[in-house]
Amino acid sequence: MSSLAQRLAAEAVGTAFLLMAVVGSGIAAQRLSPGDVGLQLFENAVATAFALMALIWAFGPISGAHFNPAVTLADVVLKGRPVSEGIAYVVAQVVGGIGGTVLANLMFSLEPVVWSTKERGGSGQWLGEVIATLGLLMVIFLIPRSRGAVIAVAVGAYIGAAYFFTSSTSFANPAVTVSRMFSDTFAGIQPASAPLFIVMQLVGAALAIGLVWFLVGRQRD
Amino acid sequence: MSSLAQRLAAEAVGTAFLLMAVVGSGIAAQRLSPGDVGLQLFENAVATAFALMALIWAFGPISGAHFNPAVTLADVVLKGRPVSEGIAYVVAQVVGGIGGTVLANLMFSLEPVVWSTKERGGSGQWLGEVIATLGLLMVIFLIPRSRGAVIAVAVGAYIGAAYFFTSSTSFANPAVTVSRMFSDTFAGIQPASAPLFIVMQLVGAALAIGLVWFLVGRQRD
Amino acid sequence: MSSLAQRLAAEAVGTAFLLMAVVGSGIAAQRLSPGDVGLQLFENAVATAFALMALIWAFGPISGAHFNPAVTLADVVLKGRPVSEGIAYVVAQVVGGIGGTVLANLMFSLEPVVWSTKERGGSGQWLGEVIATLGLLMVIFLIPRSRGAVIAVAVGAYIGAAYFFTSSTSFANPAVTVSRMFSDTFAGIQPASAPLFIVMQLVGAALAIGLVWFLVGRQRD
Amino acid sequence: MSSLAQRLAAEAVGTAFLLMAVVGSGIAAQRLSPGDVGLQLFENAVATAFALMALIWAFGPISGAHFNPAVTLADVVLKGRPVSEGIAYVVAQVVGGIGGTVLANLMFSLEPVVWSTKERGGSGQWLGEVIATLGLLMVIFLIPRSRGAVIAVAVGAYIGAAYFFTSSTSFANPAVTVSRMFSDTFAGIQPASAPLFIVMQLVGAALAIGLVWFLVGRQRD
Repeated sequence: MSSLAQRLAAEAVGTAFLLMAVVGSGIAAQRLSPGDVGLQLFENAVATAFALMALIWAFGPISGAHFNPAVTLADVVLKGRPVSEGIAYVVAQVVGGIGGTVLANLMFSLEPVVWSTKERGGSGQWLGEVIATLGLLMVIFLIPRSRGAVIAVAVGAYIGAAYFFTSSTSFANPAVTVSRMFSDTFAGIQPASAPLFIVMQLVGAALAIGLVWFLVGRQRD
Repeated sequence: MSSLAQRLAAEAVGTAFLLMAVVGSGIAAQRLSPGDVGLQLFENAVATAFALMALIWAFGPISGAHFNPAVTLADVVLKGRPVSEGIAYVVAQVVGGIGGTVLANLMFSLEPVVWSTKERGGSGQWLGEVIATLGLLMVIFLIPRSRGAVIAVAVGAYIGAAYFFTSSTSFANPAVTVSRMFSDTFAGIQPASAPLFIVMQLVGAALAIGLVWFLVGRQRD
Repeated sequence: MSSLAQRLAAEAVGTAFLLMAVVGSGIAAQRLSPGDVGLQLFENAVATAFALMALIWAFGPISGAHFNPAVTLADVVLKGRPVSEGIAYVVAQVVGGIGGTVLANLMFSLEPVVWSTKERGGSGQWLGEVIATLGLLMVIFLIPRSRGAVIAVAVGAYIGAAYFFTSSTSFANPAVTVSRMFSDTFAGIQPASAPLFIVMQLVGAALAIGLVWFLVGRQRD
Repeated sequence: MSSLAQRLAAEAVGTAFLLMAVVGSGIAAQRLSPGDVGLQLFENAVATAFALMALIWAFGPISGAHFNPAVTLADVVLKGRPVSEGIAYVVAQVVGGIGGTVLANLMFSLEPVVWSTKERGGSGQWLGEVIATLGLLMVIFLIPRSRGAVIAVAVGAYIGAAYFFTSSTSFANPAVTVSRMFSDTFAGIQPASAPLFIVMQLVGAALAIGLVWFLVGRQRD
């Protein structure tokens, strides 16, 4: 129904808001709750979860509300979305995500772009990214389309939980990973740490595709 | 179905409860969690989000549960609600909102009206209000009416998130902005700071109307 | 469909679990978060909100899941439930509620019954109870029956919010008020403070009945 | 529709993610919020509740998303699921749960298996497990199948609440109890404490089966 331009705009704007939620609430939490890192992450997780629910409900009917190249990849493989459209989606997500990070920085009176210096990695966190992405894609692709309205809550709730239950705080999204390099704040990731996070996300996506295929086949709708 | 008097009463009573939730939970949070401003905002945000969900479900079937002149403005432009009715809605919202603030002050044994002395502003917070309002209106007007029941959760969740991810703590509502001048507590805003907040909300509303128009046209239902 | 015995059992068991949630989570919060009363109330509020959602979904199809004499009173007036059945409901709620408080005490290795010594009252808190009950009943009776499934979330969310936005922490329920006299812990209320709380709840209920009547009439279904 | 292999895989993978959520978020909470045990439990409870919602929506259409031998037992008794299938479910749940605990340990750079040394028990906590399981099974089996989509939220919300309102923090699940022996962290339980927890869960399950039978009979659908 929606034109490609509308779908790409929805992906870009939605991903921009997702990054504002992730980065912006991270900055606010870090400033306002300086005494407890767990409380900062709790505030960040609930804000991200709630934002995701609202954004997926709003943009889902237009573009599917992927906001995530790993989701788009699985959509191409499992649902037959054309590869060319998938590539355009990913570009829109990355452009939107970086834009959202810049806006978050500006809202909190920081320089528009500051490269993150936060090192992330190690075998525990890499395993965390594999698992975080595997779980996210299973949640998205196992819920039948006839219950489409609950996917928004399911994804928001899953990511909110995974902020705490994975050691990596669950990036689970290559566009989010790239975008979070652009803010040297609570949610940042230094550029040197990003590539392996993305590799692990793709490993998680591949596992998810296989598992979804085994559990329900390509056809669940 | 509902008469105009019923619709206006619903807007006034609903907005009054919204302001009680915003201002009252702010007072409680400030008193009970004196050691951490982030925790205060977290309590305030969750209380506001939960109250909004309940209030929109209750009053939505009567008046649409706008509780917000920016929403009413967009409704007039995008959905063709008559201008005269829109003006009546805004009056009901402001009157109800101020009444709710007074009741919140009284519940917590404060003077019924104390002008806020809390300064808010600066380019970061003004950008925050533009973005907060833009996102709120996209969430409301992009969700198809066939999924009307989820709007209550989407709006509550969005506002709960935006308390943290925007630097202005997301007023996103001219009637709420006016009403929050009447309490010199956690949620207050000094009268001198209010006009520019409202201007930025209207800028955000204009952007949202344009973006909704581009994404789904006037007709989404 | 359900027999009267089944409906009364549902009211008693459901109210018992509600009181376990209120009193039990209050004890746990007080013990585990000794440094911040706001955090204690936050934990207590979220636990109560979440429990209410689950309990109303479970028992609603059997008895309507009132768990609250103020709701039963409004149901008799607005929906024509027989007075005799209403009285039986209230008895079941009070018996169940006291039983739940006793079980909460026992779970936390306290004496089964200890009269609360917590004084509650003053004009601010009394106004709080009027408003808390008014809002609760509007949420319940304004939501159309065709959206019955959302009432569980709406009531849970409303009560969770009202714990913070009313100065009385929102008892809003005579059976809960009576039951909370039986535990000298976080959620307790001394017997001398209970009668005026209940009077204010009935005032709130009367206001709600009038307002619902004005807004949608007796017939909303 | 789904084959037995698919159903068993769904139970194993789903229970693995449940244990990752329980154990992983417990480790994160303990590390990040060292100053307040209540805040740790709050983070742990919300993460578990949110994860359960997502996982039940994802795996429910395949296997019913029991993730819990007490649920499978009640399903065999109340719904007539074959005993042999019930046994296979329980094996899948325990294997998956232990696997999830091992993965949680690995994600947080701990040894894959460390026996818990956390003693849990006493009459208060045992009563807590009876009540926690009784309530959980009532929530699951009293909600009519025609409202199947809300069970995910109801179960997540119930468990999130029960973490706080029961003195035992609501294990309510024999497979979870066994699995939590394998991590000497926040959510652990020493092997010597596990058998009586499981006995109490089975007592709660028996009470729930009787109460469901009385309230709605075997046939609710």
